[in-house]
Amino acid sequence: MVNETQHACSASSSSRSDGGSSSGSESSKDNSRCSTPVLDSDRHERLREKMRRRQDAGDRWFSLEFFPPRTANAAVNLISRFDRMGAGGPLFIDVTWHPAGDPGSDKETSSMIIANTAVNYCGLETILHMTCCNQTKDDITGHLQKAKRLGLKNIMALRGDPSGEEWEEEVDGFNYAVDLVKHIRNEFDDYFDICVAGYPKGHPEAESYETDLRHLKEKVFAGADFIITQLFFRPETFLKFMKDCQAIGITCPIIPGIFPIQGYHSLRQLVKLSKLEVPQEIKDVIEPIKDNDAAIRSYGVELAVSMCRELLDSGMVHGLHFYTLNREVATTEVLKRLGLWREDPRRPLPWAVSAHPKRRVEDVRPIFWASRPKSYIYRTQEWDDFPNGRWGNSSSPAFGELKDYYLFYLKSKSPREELLKMWGEELTSEESVFEVFTCYITGEPNRNGYKVTCMPWNDDPLATETNLLKDELERVNRRGILTINSQPNINGKPSTDPIVGWGPSGGYVFQKAYLEFFTSSEIVTALLKVLRKYELRVNYHIVNVKGQNITNAPDLQPNAVTWGIFPGREIIQPTVVDPVSFLSWKDEAFALWIEQWAKLYEEESPSRMIIQYIHDNYYLVNLVDNDFPLENCLWQVVEDTFELLN
Amino acid sequence: MVNETQHACSASSSSRSDGGSSSGSESSKDNSRCSTPVLDSDRHERLREKMRRRQDAGDRWFSLEFFPPRTANAAVNLISRFDRMGAGGPLFIDVTWHPAGDPGSDKETSSMIIANTAVNYCGLETILHMTCCNQTKDDITGHLQKAKRLGLKNIMALRGDPSGEEWEEEVDGFNYAVDLVKHIRNEFDDYFDICVAGYPKGHPEAESYETDLRHLKEKVFAGADFIITQLFFRPETFLKFMKDCQAIGITCPIIPGIFPIQGYHSLRQLVKLSKLEVPQEIKDVIEPIKDNDAAIRSYGVELAVSMCRELLDSGMVHGLHFYTLNREVATTEVLKRLGLWREDPRRPLPWAVSAHPKRRVEDVRPIFWASRPKSYIYRTQEWDDFPNGRWGNSSSPAFGELKDYYLFYLKSKSPREELLKMWGEELTSEESVFEVFTCYITGEPNRNGYKVTCMPWNDDPLATETNLLKDELERVNRRGILTINSQPNINGKPSTDPIVGWGPSGGYVFQKAYLEFFTSSEIVTALLKVLRKYELRVNYHIVNVKGQNITNAPDLQPNAVTWGIFPGREIIQPTVVDPVSFLSWKDEAFALWIEQWAKLYEEESPSRMIIQYIHDNYYLVNLVDNDFPLENCLWQVVEDTFELLN
Repeated sequence: MVNETQHACSASSSSRSDGGSSSGSESSKDNSRCSTPVLDSDRHERLREKMRRRQDAGDRWFSLEFFPPRTANAAVNLISRFDRMGAGGPLFIDVTWHPAGDPGSDKETSSMIIANTAVNYCGLETILHMTCCNQTKDDITGHLQKAKRLGLKNIMALRGDPSGEEWEEEVDGFNYAVDLVKHIRNEFDDYFDICVAGYPKGHPEAESYETDLRHLKEKVFAGADFIITQLFFRPETFLKFMKDCQAIGITCPIIPGIFPIQGYHSLRQLVKLSKLEVPQEIKDVIEPIKDNDAAIRSYGVELAVSMCRELLDSGMVHGLHFYTLNREVATTEVLKRLGLWREDPRRPLPWAVSAHPKRRVEDVRPIFWASRPKSYIYRTQEWDDFPNGRWGNSSSPAFGELKDYYLFYLKSKSPREELLKMWGEELTSEESVFEVFTCYITGEPNRNGYKVTCMPWNDDPLATETNLLKDELERVNRRGILTINSQPNINGKPSTDPIVGWGPSGGYVFQKAYLEFFTSSEIVTALLKVLRKYELRVNYHIVNVKGQNITNAPDLQPNAVTWGIFPGREIIQPTVVDPVSFLSWKDEAFALWIEQWAKLYEEESPSRMIIQYIHDNYYLVNLVDNDFPLENCLWQVVEDTFELLN
Repeated sequence: MVNETQHACSASSSSRSDGGSSSGSESSKDNSRCSTPVLDSDRHERLREKMRRRQDAGDRWFSLEFFPPRTANAAVNLISRFDRMGAGGPLFIDVTWHPAGDPGSDKETSSMIIANTAVNYCGLETILHMTCCNQTKDDITGHLQKAKRLGLKNIMALRGDPSGEEWEEEVDGFNYAVDLVKHIRNEFDDYFDICVAGYPKGHPEAESYETDLRHLKEKVFAGADFIITQLFFRPETFLKFMKDCQAIGITCPIIPGIFPIQGYHSLRQLVKLSKLEVPQEIKDVIEPIKDNDAAIRSYGVELAVSMCRELLDSGMVHGLHFYTLNREVATTEVLKRLGLWREDPRRPLPWAVSAHPKRRVEDVRPIFWASRPKSYIYRTQEWDDFPNGRWGNSSSPAFGELKDYYLFYLKSKSPREELLKMWGEELTSEESVFEVFTCYITGEPNRNGYKVTCMPWNDDPLATETNLLKDELERVNRRGILTINSQPNINGKPSTDPIVGWGPSGGYVFQKAYLEFFTSSEIVTALLKVLRKYELRVNYHIVNVKGQNITNAPDLQPNAVTWGIFPGREIIQPTVVDPVSFLSWKDEAFALWIEQWAKLYEEESPSRMIIQYIHDNYYLVNLVDNDFPLENCLWQVVEDTFELLN
């Protein structure tokens, strides 16, 4: 009998046998216990472990390669692309290293900073490429230290293209990728996951295919964790290469590099750089349609899909690496047709998590930055600890100042002219500001026929969830309750709910109704009278730009406004309304009036003065209805306030 | 307008103004923030603060005085009395110091250990008396250090009765209580709250009433925080004393000591010791009825109630201190008639909290010790930190071994003979054990006509909450599912619910259904087959005495099974099912079969061998139904198991 149950035990992957231990003392010291409930085991694994786990589970996955942009504007666009393509669920992205582009610098277009943004601000597992030839050991160590400091955990170790025609090996220098691999392992032990390049046709400069395979084996044995290959045009090229690798004892994962042909010129350029030859059967198709971009792209997608299918069907391939050329359409289409694009992105938490290793336990944030998550990450980047389980229990230090409102990853995607069309070339009164807010909520064009698709506090159109409150929001904005954040109450919806769900399946999610807005002191006076009637049912914080602060929060405690109950887990409460951090948020919220809106207009202009007046005199208010199982009373609070004013 | 809202601000005691601070940085470092949501502000205050807060709020309160017992059995009874009288809501209790009884020792009857038990195991704010005459400075410091180590925070500093007829002041010795007060403040700074004695009629050895008042003032000015008075017989005695104290500048709280007359002899003895004179009008009533205990007690209650009413009505008295003489009836009746006995004890958490200062943040415990909270406190007494917010986040070390099952505060209240009557003089089969469990559940007498009011795992009759599950529990116990712990699922009942409510009002409490039982390996085999069908809906842990362990807990994470959502607070999840601590609990749970039950019988006797067989061969099982909003499926799981077996 005991054997029978023991069998049942070993059959379950999550079970554990402690046979023979007569005391539980050992077990309670168990280090295998995570300090935070594992909502997304990805957050606690390094890339090579994720890869291994996905492979063991028979999951198929993809990854995406990008190169650094040339201009700051292109960087803003690339970051939006990270967000959009990140939604499809890549296992990782990688950012190439352009020695000519000052890749390790702090420039917003450098490889280092783009990779930093992907990890920290877009929450993407990221590999930073790094080349070593023509560089000193100190330079390289400096780059690696900086990468580590920024939270990067994965390096693609490459030789790079030697500069100058006549390249000679340097004694004690970095002549080959293997030297970089060794250096990383020497200086950083096992901190980084290391990826190296494989050449299914052999490196163009290698003596022979066999010599090149031996070099690859050296790189792996020096400490590389996995291999991504150069692009190729026929599946059999990769499959032969993979078998040859295995035959000489390379056992780490080998990920095929997929290049969906997207245009005639980009193909020619890539071929030239990579010194590959395009097979005749492809040339035969492409040459006749070389001026028809759409036809070529369509053929490229077709070709990539069929090659990928063949690779996956071989059973030897679990993941596919895409050379995107920083474009979305072709790769996304290939992925969708392969069924690899995650159609139903399950959110591990209601907000996008950062991929910095320091933040892996983070699971509570104040609600205020809900529409400005990148700003929140920026302003808390100096924190050593992140709140986990409870906000109030965190010893988090002060929020960083937001001095530069034009940090490129916080920059509005819209240029000044467009903002003026949306928010008004000329404002004539506070009411014309109310109108802008109302148009943003309704999605209707403003009086000049332009849709208001963003606001200083919200860079994107209204969230689906907020849409549930649209009618009420429209009504109150028209009357000067200028809403910038809200959520409906939720009393136990399944965690798989397409709109409000998050976390693992089988759970239930909850919310308290929340409303945050700017409004005049006249309305605040009436509101405070009304709030007395609601006593502890409604918690409020009311603050103006000078920091005058009115709240009924008991003992300045945070109020959990979003939480989830899941099978076999502790309770997760990812969002709180916190009276203390609200004072940091109000600095940002008030400053956005000036920095993003008032400054669109000439100094001393009436438009600018109207915004300045609002900035100086309005209050920022947040309200929480604690009675989540009942009907949201916050609209009634606002109605009562208007009534009192009449 | 700003002034108007500012006014609203200062009118609310929990609001706060930050006027002028342009940055929130300072605020986020705010130290006034509690690290745990304040459910019960009592836990975070010292006694003198509680007293002050209650007085400011216009609350009236009471406290209770006990003396240490003479025998270990009397100690067990006294501890039960602490639990019962603690339910009435005393602000504190105090334990007298008997120099003759080795009061600072580790004996289970010592003043020190009784006070320790009251604080740590009964969760009562406690004052330990301490006398100083005829003791060395080192002795006294040693006692104080020990008291501090045990978590005691309050000392009643007394001179004590000098031994020997001829008492002379010692130079540099402790001659008066004031010396002890000074010593405590010198050696322990502000750690202890210090109480001193006041004599409404003057100390019997004092030169005069006025001299005695001056001595009292000295004690207060040396650092005492409040005064408890000697008993007195007329309210005007106390009120005059209080006015006289105030007149000479004593401003600290002065608490009248109330002595409900409970019998002729105890009154005479007390009068002799305290050298007080009983007023003629009382003697006149008592003498004629001196042999009628009931009549005297009834008169004593009457007298105490009327005196207390007069004191409270004077407006000068906020708290009353009762000399209980270790008896319950009279004091409880006085308190009930005064309306001071807490009729609806609101629980700050579902389990009784300990009053040790180290444990003031503790707000999560494993469910396993629900019926053995004193054992849990004992086994975790060496912990330096207590889990707060999340169980999984705690770095709590191993559970202490439970070597001595007869630790007096864990001792069964029933003697061996009574246990044999309840659990069977002679067991004939496993089924006769099933019967004992079943009788405990139903409350029906066993075949010999005795009610089973306790079990080795439950020292008290079934909890009200468990009664909700009575029918189901009876059915499964009859068939060999021997339940020792359970709770129903609760989907958002008000926190004020009389049966399952806890925490501040205005909240909602939740539970996942839980069932814990011993059962045979045959049933476990069938159960495991059934559980497959329920997948992640039901989490299980199944373990035998050897530690063979079967579980489907994801990543060995704890599962929150009781939680509450409150206005303006983070979420509290006071109870978890934790796969790691379950292994410590199973040692205790299995050992109780032997230590409490098997050992009632002769070695080698059939009864003992039956219990030993169960101990060696049964499994301890716990089940959690994660789908708390649906009907509890655990009974279905058990039914399915029985069905499979048939």
